[in-house]
Amino acid sequence: MTRPTIPQGTRDFSPEVVRKRTYILNIVKNVFELYGFQPLETPAMENLETLMGKYGEEGDKLIFRILNNGLERPEKQQKAREDFEKILQGKNEKGITERALKYDLTIPFARYVAMNHGQLNFPFKRYQVQPVWRADKPQRGRYREFYQCDADVVGSNSLLNEVELAHIYAEVFTQLGLSNISLRINHRKILTALAEQCGGGGQFGAITIAIDKLDKIGLEKVKEELLSRGLTNDQVAVVEKYLQVNGSNDDILRSLDSIIGNSAEGKKGLEELRYILTRQPAIGLTIDPTLARGLNYYTGTIFEVKAPAEVKIGSIGGGGRYDDLTGLFGVPGIPGVGISFGVDRIYDVLEELNLFPPAINVSTQVLFFNLGKEEAERSFVLMQELRQKGLRCELYHEEAKMDKQFKYAEKKNIPYAIIIGDRDLAAGTANIKDLLNRKQETISLSALLSYDFGKGIN
Amino acid sequence: MTRPTIPQGTRDFSPEVVRKRTYILNIVKNVFELYGFQPLETPAMENLETLMGKYGEEGDKLIFRILNNGLERPEKQQKAREDFEKILQGKNEKGITERALKYDLTIPFARYVAMNHGQLNFPFKRYQVQPVWRADKPQRGRYREFYQCDADVVGSNSLLNEVELAHIYAEVFTQLGLSNISLRINHRKILTALAEQCGGGGQFGAITIAIDKLDKIGLEKVKEELLSRGLTNDQVAVVEKYLQVNGSNDDILRSLDSIIGNSAEGKKGLEELRYILTRQPAIGLTIDPTLARGLNYYTGTIFEVKAPAEVKIGSIGGGGRYDDLTGLFGVPGIPGVGISFGVDRIYDVLEELNLFPPAINVSTQVLFFNLGKEEAERSFVLMQELRQKGLRCELYHEEAKMDKQFKYAEKKNIPYAIIIGDRDLAAGTANIKDLLNRKQETISLSALLSYDFGKGIN
Repeated sequence: MTRPTIPQGTRDFSPEVVRKRTYILNIVKNVFELYGFQPLETPAMENLETLMGKYGEEGDKLIFRILNNGLERPEKQQKAREDFEKILQGKNEKGITERALKYDLTIPFARYVAMNHGQLNFPFKRYQVQPVWRADKPQRGRYREFYQCDADVVGSNSLLNEVELAHIYAEVFTQLGLSNISLRINHRKILTALAEQCGGGGQFGAITIAIDKLDKIGLEKVKEELLSRGLTNDQVAVVEKYLQVNGSNDDILRSLDSIIGNSAEGKKGLEELRYILTRQPAIGLTIDPTLARGLNYYTGTIFEVKAPAEVKIGSIGGGGRYDDLTGLFGVPGIPGVGISFGVDRIYDVLEELNLFPPAINVSTQVLFFNLGKEEAERSFVLMQELRQKGLRCELYHEEAKMDKQFKYAEKKNIPYAIIIGDRDLAAGTANIKDLLNRKQETISLSALLSYDFGKGIN
Repeated sequence: MTRPTIPQGTRDFSPEVVRKRTYILNIVKNVFELYGFQPLETPAMENLETLMGKYGEEGDKLIFRILNNGLERPEKQQKAREDFEKILQGKNEKGITERALKYDLTIPFARYVAMNHGQLNFPFKRYQVQPVWRADKPQRGRYREFYQCDADVVGSNSLLNEVELAHIYAEVFTQLGLSNISLRINHRKILTALAEQCGGGGQFGAITIAIDKLDKIGLEKVKEELLSRGLTNDQVAVVEKYLQVNGSNDDILRSLDSIIGNSAEGKKGLEELRYILTRQPAIGLTIDPTLARGLNYYTGTIFEVKAPAEVKIGSIGGGGRYDDLTGLFGVPGIPGVGISFGVDRIYDVLEELNLFPPAINVSTQVLFFNLGKEEAERSFVLMQELRQKGLRCELYHEEAKMDKQFKYAEKKNIPYAIIIGDRDLAAGTANIKDLLNRKQETISLSALLSYDFGKGIN
């Protein structure tokens, strides 16, 4: 038997990692709940047709399909071969793969809303924290199984939702100790207006895609791309002027107002931004005209969160308003707006800035040493009483040398040892050792039950 | 577009259901932590060869395989066709399905321990709560995606682990309000001894499998099955005598002692049971000689938890000791013992007995009504202050008739409304309405921030 491995692009999360991830997710979930969002979970698998065609041609190729079971049955084989040939031809029909792993949380959520809209209480505010799967080429920071963490409100056109989502971002990152993130906002309708200024709506796609790459390829390459996509020099000059807008939010609003001209769409976008900016969260929103967001379902406000400048990680969250996601599933007219948190990247940022609370590595608080049968019996009874009080304890599993037991405690980051030897049995005492500062004290067994293990030993 | 559906045997968990599941899982996880267990998470996908051959021939057929991506590339096609033919022949080679969805948590855990044993701190105590997938025929209470919830200790032969796992069961079910469950224990070595009395170890498998069915098919059918498997009438009589052993734990121990004769294995099993029973948890362990557990990797103590008799659900948990699980992955000599909780069934039991705490349905605690622009502005500011104090609040998303807002609150089980109208703006007051008993009081805005929403309004 060779040493086992796990699939490329997937990860085991060790206890230390699970604790740190749970720390992040608990903060996020608690803030979602403070704002009236409710948890939803959908299955890992969806019907293939639910997913296919929703993520563009490239996305379709990255969907993990699940092979039907029972294909070896004689009556299934001929059809199975035919279906398999279709897969070899790159067709997206279900055939022998009726199910697939979900690729994001948004489409399954839209599918859920479409299936249940008659029973839902609108506006429906849900959050969802689950893994998704993509057959991407694995590389640093890109996995084939990773968690998404989304909050969306559907069934409401109110800008109050945008305001609250911005406040959620600010609250979560403040609680995580990341109040130096940058919270960016822009509006798709302003981009629409820009496209109008550059020869009509037909250029909207080209302009958004090019702008979306600005961070990665720089202004000159963006201009080249726009020229190659058929914009004139004059039109590219308008985009350039747009991309160079800067200053305070008020400065930016004024500059944009002059660029977008009389576009009704553009005016509407500016008006919505102005409204949202009247209710600034603790970490202020900054208008970023270069923010475009690749996904084509956004139709209104768009958000992006940039990691603190000192960590070179880029975006750690994003979202926006969409008009008609459930229309894909035959239920039109349900608008929505949502945000997501990039959990893996936030983890990396906290790790790099050393922002996880130190106590996160402490699970078991007290290790009772095992120094013999009778000693262990006594320790077990005491341990059960401490557990009843909520203290996380262990009794070393067998009689062993002190050294071995100290090593176990050290490796598991256990801060306290309780050592009860044969003389303690007679005297009714226990020795409490603070394993960080190596200080020790001897107390009576009755005092042990009310001992304050939070205080340290001085 | 037809109405979308989800794959057979899978479920969406609505907010109410997620809350109830979280309630159960939090109790279980907290008790695991009290006992020094640490969380582990493994990927949904494993390499196919990690899973194949571990669950018997029937199990292999129920594993969901994931199709490799990129098969449409010309250079892949010929090999893909050959590989597909192997699948049609029922072969378990990886070929075009290198990955598969995990079928349980135990084999991935063994794979994890085998991969990481050099770094682990033994005894390694881990818990794991994750979904698994099986291509079983869906039926009432049986799903294709369901959660398992396991705790295992590996790297220790100490019976202290068995004792603690029994205490964990007792503690969890007590906290869930299910102190009338039945906690059963038996020992594989006693079954081995029984097989020795029935013509040698060769009958061990036949006897365990038959006994395991006792609950479902009754004693007569078990006897028939044993006869058909080649046991003599005398041997079947021994099994029958064994299955009819009853009384107090002490009675049972005495009876078993006489049945197993001089078997060294049997004596060892009895001795271990006796030791474990000296440290009875709050819900006492009952020896159940008819307990066999189907899984063939158990070698020592075995556990089973039966739901309270008034709900006809049967087993809601089980586990036992195994000697050499990681041996499957080339790392022999690591013993282990573990238990699992049947989360879906526990959910059904709590639902049937109405044991979920009523407060579980309350998410948002306060709804601010939206009665106009200025009123909403004022409400928003107050709401943000209440949220800072940890109160879960919402402001209705748009100005609307009172009736509509009451309906929203009612459907979402929100217990309090705060109503601020134009006269309140002038007077600096707010009306707090208890939506359960319809009582209302008017207080000053400054009093609102220290109002105790826990107390109810009298």
